[in-house]
Amino acid sequence: MDGVRIAVIGATGAVGQVFLKLLEERNFPASQIRLCASERSLGKRIIVNHTDLIIESPTKDLFNEVDIVFISATGDVSQELAPMAVDNGSLVIDDSSVFRMDPDVPLVVPEVNLGDIDLHRGIIAIPNCSTTPLVMVLKPLNDINPVKRVIVDTYQSVSGTGSVAVNELGAQSKVALDGGTAAAGVYPHPIAFNVIPHIESFLENTYTREEMKMLNESRKILHDPNLKVSATCVRVPVMVGHSESIHIEMEHDVNVSEMREILSESPGIRMLDEPSSNLYPTPLDAAGKDDVFVGRLRQDISGSNSVAMWVVCDNLRKGAALNAIQIAEAILEKNLI
Amino acid sequence: MDGVRIAVIGATGAVGQVFLKLLEERNFPASQIRLCASERSLGKRIIVNHTDLIIESPTKDLFNEVDIVFISATGDVSQELAPMAVDNGSLVIDDSSVFRMDPDVPLVVPEVNLGDIDLHRGIIAIPNCSTTPLVMVLKPLNDINPVKRVIVDTYQSVSGTGSVAVNELGAQSKVALDGGTAAAGVYPHPIAFNVIPHIESFLENTYTREEMKMLNESRKILHDPNLKVSATCVRVPVMVGHSESIHIEMEHDVNVSEMREILSESPGIRMLDEPSSNLYPTPLDAAGKDDVFVGRLRQDISGSNSVAMWVVCDNLRKGAALNAIQIAEAILEKNLI
Repeated sequence: MDGVRIAVIGATGAVGQVFLKLLEERNFPASQIRLCASERSLGKRIIVNHTDLIIESPTKDLFNEVDIVFISATGDVSQELAPMAVDNGSLVIDDSSVFRMDPDVPLVVPEVNLGDIDLHRGIIAIPNCSTTPLVMVLKPLNDINPVKRVIVDTYQSVSGTGSVAVNELGAQSKVALDGGTAAAGVYPHPIAFNVIPHIESFLENTYTREEMKMLNESRKILHDPNLKVSATCVRVPVMVGHSESIHIEMEHDVNVSEMREILSESPGIRMLDEPSSNLYPTPLDAAGKDDVFVGRLRQDISGSNSVAMWVVCDNLRKGAALNAIQIAEAILEKNLI
Repeated sequence: MDGVRIAVIGATGAVGQVFLKLLEERNFPASQIRLCASERSLGKRIIVNHTDLIIESPTKDLFNEVDIVFISATGDVSQELAPMAVDNGSLVIDDSSVFRMDPDVPLVVPEVNLGDIDLHRGIIAIPNCSTTPLVMVLKPLNDINPVKRVIVDTYQSVSGTGSVAVNELGAQSKVALDGGTAAAGVYPHPIAFNVIPHIESFLENTYTREEMKMLNESRKILHDPNLKVSATCVRVPVMVGHSESIHIEMEHDVNVSEMREILSESPGIRMLDEPSSNLYPTPLDAAGKDDVFVGRLRQDISGSNSVAMWVVCDNLRKGAALNAIQIAEAILEKNLI
């Protein structure tokens, strides 16, 4: 066998589609690609790398016949299929939140904590799409000046919810532009020409699940159980690309030019920070690109030990599919399967 | 004379139009209304309170014939016309940033610092539309627990730029929905299905003018020259309504239920905060309403002396025209002209 046999569960979804595109773009050494999706897509054909593939059901036999399974569907799907895949000899890279906080499951952003994959027991989780860009900037900065507290407000695109939300934003926008009133659908309120400070369900402390993910996942990835992160997660009428306004309080006074240099040299990060030329990241520019873009880096005017910045990344790429495929590449390189 | 004679400079603009609507809605006791706008609107007719009015040029004679002049145009227009109006016997309520930080000019949000209007010397300024909702929540909270530091990230609608930006968002959205690529126009980047972390020009400290307004105007209005405010001002593809994610660090541990009660009782503020029923403010709901809406009020998980909240207000109403007309009403009540 030359290469690795993989299965993609959720192949027709927003993240699954990008995953397939990345397999091509990166020349991922797959000897076989199997695609699964929900029942209504069974039998549908998708061309990957000039090969005509048919959507099939995820079965024990299928998991026996592949090496790596990538799952990006619902939490319920991951809950059901990930253990089944492991039991049948596959390594699972999972995009759901189901296993992320499980102490036996590494939660990995390769640029940040690649070493954690060595400890895997069959499942490796990737973080929520809003956590990944955050930890990617926190890690290198924390190495030179310990991060004490983070305040982050997000501007998250609808593709984070899935293709159905992308379609809904388009449809609602058309209704509104024609002078009508769009009805809510996927979200509790219309998202066209609106912003909604509510992603995932509310918890008892009235933070949302999404906001608490940013705290808990960051702590796990950075191996810092005392890290403080207060997030407000907000949905905005953008198709692809999550933006974050990040405020970091550090142990010592900050040196912005040193931070700029360190971030510039960090893998996966691209500085786009020339305000005088109107250069800073926007989701429209970041969509379709692999990097986490950082701009508006500045000494926080409200504290000498604080820094503010604006971070944007393609939530389907580095926020999901790209992070997963990078983990798969690392697994092959480390001969972990 | 029964009532007051007023002139509206910038009557055809986004704020001017709302101002005229408010004159009707509030039964403002105007005995005469004169309208001015830029040259291309001269001679145009606008109906206000069932009266057919004609757009005219702002002249010394006009300023001699009115009592209160409301200006919402460009900074250059305010710079030129405000002193001329004062010299010719009018009281000016100005929406531009030109006079806001002038120590001789009161900068007023009636619910916060109405007393300051007593000291006027002919010009009273209203704050930037992103400052007004911020100081309205800071004031009552500061009275019970001194505010030490504020971090605020905004989600500002295009109507803050003016009607031209509202039209542009509509036109760009149509192009994008038809599969095209919208070109930038009013802003340095397309705003349709995008967010832009850049409002007004960049200053040497790489904060924008808009962001520094939120600091400097808040200090002046709250009479607290040591207040710390770090803002990131972001344009979002929303027609009307500015949203703000506000994080307040206070001197003592916060008591959220007490804060909730105090905010509920504050004039001009309406709590909309029932997460379990998906109730929190959105710009689509706040547009066309007078109140500053507060939701997502919660103990900040990153600090016992911190609180987080989500605030939305109609930037054309309380953010501009309503604030101005409330000042005019107070002037009449206090017999200040």
